[in-house]
Amino acid sequence: MPADTVTWRDNALTIIDQTLLPTEYRKIRLARVADVWHAIKTLKIRGAPAIGVCAAFGVLVAVKEKAPNNTVDAVRAAIQAADYLATSRPTAVNLFWALSRMKRVADSCRDAQDPQAVWQALEAEAKTICDEDRQMCRAIGNHGAGLIHDGDGVLTHCNAGGLATSDYGTALAVMFRAHEIGRRFHVFADETRPLLQGARLTAWELVEAGIDATVICDNMAAQVMREGRIQLVIVGADRIAANGDTANKIGTYGVALLAKAHNIPFYVAAPSSTFDLSIESGEAIPIEQRDPAEVTHGFGRQTAPAGVGVYNPAFDVTPAELVTAFITEKGLLRPPYRKEIAAQS
Amino acid sequence: MPADTVTWRDNALTIIDQTLLPTEYRKIRLARVADVWHAIKTLKIRGAPAIGVCAAFGVLVAVKEKAPNNTVDAVRAAIQAADYLATSRPTAVNLFWALSRMKRVADSCRDAQDPQAVWQALEAEAKTICDEDRQMCRAIGNHGAGLIHDGDGVLTHCNAGGLATSDYGTALAVMFRAHEIGRRFHVFADETRPLLQGARLTAWELVEAGIDATVICDNMAAQVMREGRIQLVIVGADRIAANGDTANKIGTYGVALLAKAHNIPFYVAAPSSTFDLSIESGEAIPIEQRDPAEVTHGFGRQTAPAGVGVYNPAFDVTPAELVTAFITEKGLLRPPYRKEIAAQS
Repeated sequence: MPADTVTWRDNALTIIDQTLLPTEYRKIRLARVADVWHAIKTLKIRGAPAIGVCAAFGVLVAVKEKAPNNTVDAVRAAIQAADYLATSRPTAVNLFWALSRMKRVADSCRDAQDPQAVWQALEAEAKTICDEDRQMCRAIGNHGAGLIHDGDGVLTHCNAGGLATSDYGTALAVMFRAHEIGRRFHVFADETRPLLQGARLTAWELVEAGIDATVICDNMAAQVMREGRIQLVIVGADRIAANGDTANKIGTYGVALLAKAHNIPFYVAAPSSTFDLSIESGEAIPIEQRDPAEVTHGFGRQTAPAGVGVYNPAFDVTPAELVTAFITEKGLLRPPYRKEIAAQS
Repeated sequence: MPADTVTWRDNALTIIDQTLLPTEYRKIRLARVADVWHAIKTLKIRGAPAIGVCAAFGVLVAVKEKAPNNTVDAVRAAIQAADYLATSRPTAVNLFWALSRMKRVADSCRDAQDPQAVWQALEAEAKTICDEDRQMCRAIGNHGAGLIHDGDGVLTHCNAGGLATSDYGTALAVMFRAHEIGRRFHVFADETRPLLQGARLTAWELVEAGIDATVICDNMAAQVMREGRIQLVIVGADRIAANGDTANKIGTYGVALLAKAHNIPFYVAAPSSTFDLSIESGEAIPIEQRDPAEVTHGFGRQTAPAGVGVYNPAFDVTPAELVTAFITEKGLLRPPYRKEIAAQS
């Protein structure tokens, strides 16, 4: 269980540099707010809940860096940092949700006695966000574990594990919990091009936890389903609209269509903070476009010719009708989603 | 147009080493039959029609290497070489088809006057196989070009281009011919993990030919379809059963399902030599399993943790009902396939 995804200790923020996994496990200190922004942007830390927690502590990093000697400056530093960190990535709503909580606390500190009081309030809020995230993971694991039966094959895409949260994940929490209660099953991890979070991170977490796992290339999922080796799909989410349309790592939508074609249930595990009721449907979710070099030079070697176009969306949107149920910290949500999502929020 | 995929000149066999593309274009001489076997096994040359042609000339390489001084030895060398080369890869039927043609000719030479006469008969057959392959490419291009209309987006998977044949391909022949007759369209090339034949080879051929092309990761195809940017899919094939079930590069079956979900026609371009009437349905087609290191160490860098399982089938089978039509050198075949395939054979 990678418990050290985000660590706040002695007023210092430390993360695991996930770009080095699975061959190197290295923790790095983020000493300046620019380091935090860069770490999120370059996916040294990724996963919707984890970047929310990291950004919350990032606000503290910024305040410490400014060393404000009055309340006004401390509040301003916090709010500026929150606005700045919100520009690091556009799709995952948890980032904005965590930063708006930090801003709300900063705002409420305008009459605080001194910068130290502002600091204490901000630190308390960031720690609360982190603690809630841990509890959320455990609750999702508990609610979902019953979906996995002995002998099942479970397919997952990208990484929605401990490395994507402060504890043991969302989609992977379900598998970790099922493993804890003695279920015997096998996990297939899509490698998840271009950045291979499935092969590098999910496979690493599963091996560390002693869960049987097989890595496949993304284009092998249909074949593995056809062979009858997948009984359910569980993925995470970066943002879920009011109608249940779900933005997640590119390729998730394709997996959902393949699951439907093989009559395999498709589950999305995500905390309530992933639901964005301000967005009616998936069409309004902004989709991050990333550097073409991730596709063409992803492995230290050029794999496409000069002069060719490249399309590199980081996410896609799975329509709600392809989702069998959502697994949240509050329980399972089943259709009709618009009503159920509104009710749980 | 990469015309030099397989070259036979002055009794010497030369190929383009396709593992070095797109960054290096190097021709290599295959001086011994073991070199030919190894080149096919390690995908220095690949593509069902191209490995058939290469293997046919490989029989000549073997005979030259043995330097037989009587007819019996020459015939034996040819037959042994054909049996040996047939073990290089299991799925593409064109390999066995070309080698059985060479064996039949060798067999018919048992009463030949001298080794030179055996040689001449074998060389004539290999050249015929190569010439027929060239004509096949042109005919497929002509029959299929009308399927592409101005403004279309065409998705292809893996490489069924000039590098997979002796001329300008099967699936790509359709695009090259459409381009020649002035159609304006855009091609999306799935990169095709694990060996990236789409990104490395198809994209290279399209750029060389001046056709607009965009590389995507395999898991982006569904999203590009959903965006309305794909009007048809064209892929090649390695073996087609009597009922139309089609073995092709891993991932093809998934693309066919995604095309169906988006109501996009899905075409398979392949010569008649790809149809294997001895096989009733796709379930009987042997699927090559390749080295897990292609998935975990494909780019000179380890991308999955030690201890994780890996599944690496090189092909999958697309059920006939997902194929809109076959484009062969004889024309378009539409359902019912069992009858149409039998009639054209």
